[in-house]
Amino acid sequence: MKMTISKKGLYEGLETAAKAISPNSPVPALSGIKIEAEENSLILTGSDADVSIRYVLTNEENEDLKLNVIETGAVVVDYRYLLEIVRKIESEEIQIEILDGTLTRFSGGSAEFKINGFRAESYPEIDFSKPGNTFTIGSGVLSEIIEETAFAANSKDTRLVLTGVNFNSDGTKIICTATDSYRLARKIVPVESEPFKITVLAKSLNMARSIFGSKEADVEISLNDKKILFSSSGIIMQTRLLEGTFPETDRLIPAEFSRELVVNRRMLISAIDRTSFIKTDNMFIIRMQISGNEILLTTKSQEIGESHEDLIAESYTGDPIDISFTGNYVSDAAKALNTDNIRIRFTGDMKPFILVNDGNDDSVLQLVLPVRTYN
Amino acid sequence: MKMTISKKGLYEGLETAAKAISPNSPVPALSGIKIEAEENSLILTGSDADVSIRYVLTNEENEDLKLNVIETGAVVVDYRYLLEIVRKIESEEIQIEILDGTLTRFSGGSAEFKINGFRAESYPEIDFSKPGNTFTIGSGVLSEIIEETAFAANSKDTRLVLTGVNFNSDGTKIICTATDSYRLARKIVPVESEPFKITVLAKSLNMARSIFGSKEADVEISLNDKKILFSSSGIIMQTRLLEGTFPETDRLIPAEFSRELVVNRRMLISAIDRTSFIKTDNMFIIRMQISGNEILLTTKSQEIGESHEDLIAESYTGDPIDISFTGNYVSDAAKALNTDNIRIRFTGDMKPFILVNDGNDDSVLQLVLPVRTYN
Repeated sequence: MKMTISKKGLYEGLETAAKAISPNSPVPALSGIKIEAEENSLILTGSDADVSIRYVLTNEENEDLKLNVIETGAVVVDYRYLLEIVRKIESEEIQIEILDGTLTRFSGGSAEFKINGFRAESYPEIDFSKPGNTFTIGSGVLSEIIEETAFAANSKDTRLVLTGVNFNSDGTKIICTATDSYRLARKIVPVESEPFKITVLAKSLNMARSIFGSKEADVEISLNDKKILFSSSGIIMQTRLLEGTFPETDRLIPAEFSRELVVNRRMLISAIDRTSFIKTDNMFIIRMQISGNEILLTTKSQEIGESHEDLIAESYTGDPIDISFTGNYVSDAAKALNTDNIRIRFTGDMKPFILVNDGNDDSVLQLVLPVRTYN
Repeated sequence: MKMTISKKGLYEGLETAAKAISPNSPVPALSGIKIEAEENSLILTGSDADVSIRYVLTNEENEDLKLNVIETGAVVVDYRYLLEIVRKIESEEIQIEILDGTLTRFSGGSAEFKINGFRAESYPEIDFSKPGNTFTIGSGVLSEIIEETAFAANSKDTRLVLTGVNFNSDGTKIICTATDSYRLARKIVPVESEPFKITVLAKSLNMARSIFGSKEADVEISLNDKKILFSSSGIIMQTRLLEGTFPETDRLIPAEFSRELVVNRRMLISAIDRTSFIKTDNMFIIRMQISGNEILLTTKSQEIGESHEDLIAESYTGDPIDISFTGNYVSDAAKALNTDNIRIRFTGDMKPFILVNDGNDDSVLQLVLPVRTYN
């Protein structure tokens, strides 16, 4: 292998491929990025066995890449050294050459690095073939789905299927749902495909968002009952699906409500943020009392003290309410909405309540369970 | 106690006083900031028993303070809650009032916080009286002294006196020395005072720099054989001295040298930075070979690989040299100098070498011990 390539293009490719790598992989070669130089392309692969990323760099896709392969070949190099070296080289172009077996030279400017790599053959075979069920969505929509649901997934490993976002398609729309059993986030997007029902680890989805979210291109999604594969702009990212049955959540969502609050979203978020100084295990319980247009938020701790926040509602209909909830949950939910005002719909002080965007957009729904307090 | 004060002025004062507090103090009251409202001033005190800070806020010192004391009084409040609350209150002025014993109300904008504090009497008595030996230096000079020496102090607790910077005054100048026994930094500043010889914890000096370095005012320094007290702009910071005899370091510094390298400081620092990817325990050994004007820097590891850097010297006099050293130490030393080019003076490949500013400024001297390598 012998080639020259722009530092910037190479670094961006390595950073993307490295996202899939977990630093303490039991398979030594998986701590590396596989670098394959072909006639007209450089293929970078990173994987932790569950999630895999393959990035095909070409001069066609990126006109500043200046890839010039003088001799094809392949090697695997530890991703930490690779990223550090390429970042530190102070020149626009980098020369890469396998000197002897797996000893690989990277040079540019006044610097030269020789790194012991792994043989390309020691890298596990990864099947990047596309499953049959394929559809396309915009990268912006993909980002939205993930931003508005993934945060509500369970962050603990106690019930594995709840660490993912469930995608349930009837062929015309996908219902995306995440819940940690104390709150729930749901988004519905119209997409034509064969029907499917899968659950994908929230962490992998956040990785997909960080890779594809900034590209202004459509993302092709293919899936079967084993994996989901995202593909766009020369980059493939695939991840294994979560096993287990995702709970039926429809019956949790109240169909009717007796009270509705309309409140400025940013004002609510910052009022919750201010009261958040009283915490237990990084969680804090807020009591919300609404009467007329007056909202009073309080937090209290025998030990520390208490806080009060006065807010004025845009409008409130229904009887007064006195309800307590985990502040983080309502704040996360409000952040996942996007209109200036939001609507919070209650059915009772111990019943789940939902937060939705103001106006006619009912594609996103956030649900939070209240908590019992003993004031 | 009842008063109003500008949020900005109060927050700056609390931040400064909090620097002395260590989060897990065995004395509960020392996790708090003592707030004393007097007729025309607000006094904030923070301490960890070794280091203590006292900040007297007045409308004379800070015309934007808008301090209005309606009722004098004192209370101690946990610094974490205090900083968080004051930061979060969204209004220019804050009202503070003791409601009941130690329950203190902070309010502003739509927010109101009631915090359980400690009684002012439970806070330890701290003697902020100024020792007799007093002199004054500019805050810029104080910062320089600390920046150019404190990094070389021992960061481990193995030999306590080496965790400090030694100040040795003959009445006309102060010799400031720090060493971890592998390297040494020395700065000489002309200052008239009674002679003294003291050692101050490097960490406390860095704290003094962060407090006084940004003020454009003289700093008054007072000391005896127990403590050193810095004072400027209404702020007093004092710290206990380190006990133990600081080693005689003069004999370590070579008076003559056989070879001198003049090299661009920034180029040397970035070449060392690039080669730093081969690390053991966050340290890296660099081999430097100089012949004529050519400098070759190499690092090597059987396991990882190697790196080469070519540098051109501004000038080199003497026989070629082949010397190895801890890269961090030379890089730290070069960063503590400030001329475009620096001079490195060698006496032999296993003898300490020194780094000094180019030109006539010999007030700063950095010394590094080479390491033996087995290449």
